[in-house]
Amino acid sequence: MESCVPPGFRFHPTEEELVGYYLKRKISSLKIDLDVIADIDLYKMEPWDIQGIYTISHTEWYFFSHKDRKYPTGTRTNRATAAGFWKATGRDKAVLSKNKIIGMRKTLVFYGGRAPNGRKSDWIIHEYRLQTFQNATPQVPN
Amino acid sequence: MESCVPPGFRFHPTEEELVGYYLKRKISSLKIDLDVIADIDLYKMEPWDIQGIYTISHTEWYFFSHKDRKYPTGTRTNRATAAGFWKATGRDKAVLSKNKIIGMRKTLVFYGGRAPNGRKSDWIIHEYRLQTFQNATPQVPN
Repeated sequence: MESCVPPGFRFHPTEEELVGYYLKRKISSLKIDLDVIADIDLYKMEPWDIQGIYTISHTEWYFFSHKDRKYPTGTRTNRATAAGFWKATGRDKAVLSKNKIIGMRKTLVFYGGRAPNGRKSDWIIHEYRLQTFQNATPQVPN
Repeated sequence: MESCVPPGFRFHPTEEELVGYYLKRKISSLKIDLDVIADIDLYKMEPWDIQGIYTISHTEWYFFSHKDRKYPTGTRTNRATAAGFWKATGRDKAVLSKNKIIGMRKTLVFYGGRAPNGRKSDWIIHEYRLQTFQNATPQVPN
């Protein structure tokens, strides 16, 4: 997998690289130089199962996952797994590139059980999304 | 320089990689995949000058340097620069690969001024040397 990476190099991406290169190309179905970020279905897995799919042990893992809608027609996100749920904490944070916002980061904490009685765990996810401003300036019909 | 390294990869070598790949190949004049470790003359530079030769700002730098002998015929090392000197601290530590010693690490601290009146600084070097056991088992003449 790391055939092109010389000895001593590790995957320690900046947020700008994660969003501006990896996520952007993934969403655009463009080729990614090296297949370092796995596709998983986050809400079909428990956090302790995720490390099992990585051959090298780390304390951090990177992956792509689709958002799961709570209801087919709605925009609310279903963040429950079989054993618990991911809950957003704090404010979303902007990811910048050359002083422009290219994405947002949401931090989620895993709770065992079901809301509102979940047991907070030490598992944390930083969820990055691309920020596009294509529809940010609505046209005024004339 | 990093043309072959995909986005998000950083040079964070293990000691085994530093000694077993980079230092070993350097000493053997073998090709190194990517020219990430600069050649410098450590004792012709002050520590604060070293960062100037690196284009990207870090808190760690990797370089190759020849040892400078104190006297042409001796084995003592001259570790003085114009403004101070590097002084060993603690014990040398073994660098292992597959449970075998492949090298040793010496830690040196920079002192301003001249021994024994140097002023200790926060600059630290880890000096790696290859450990070869070619002459470790002397033949008993018969």
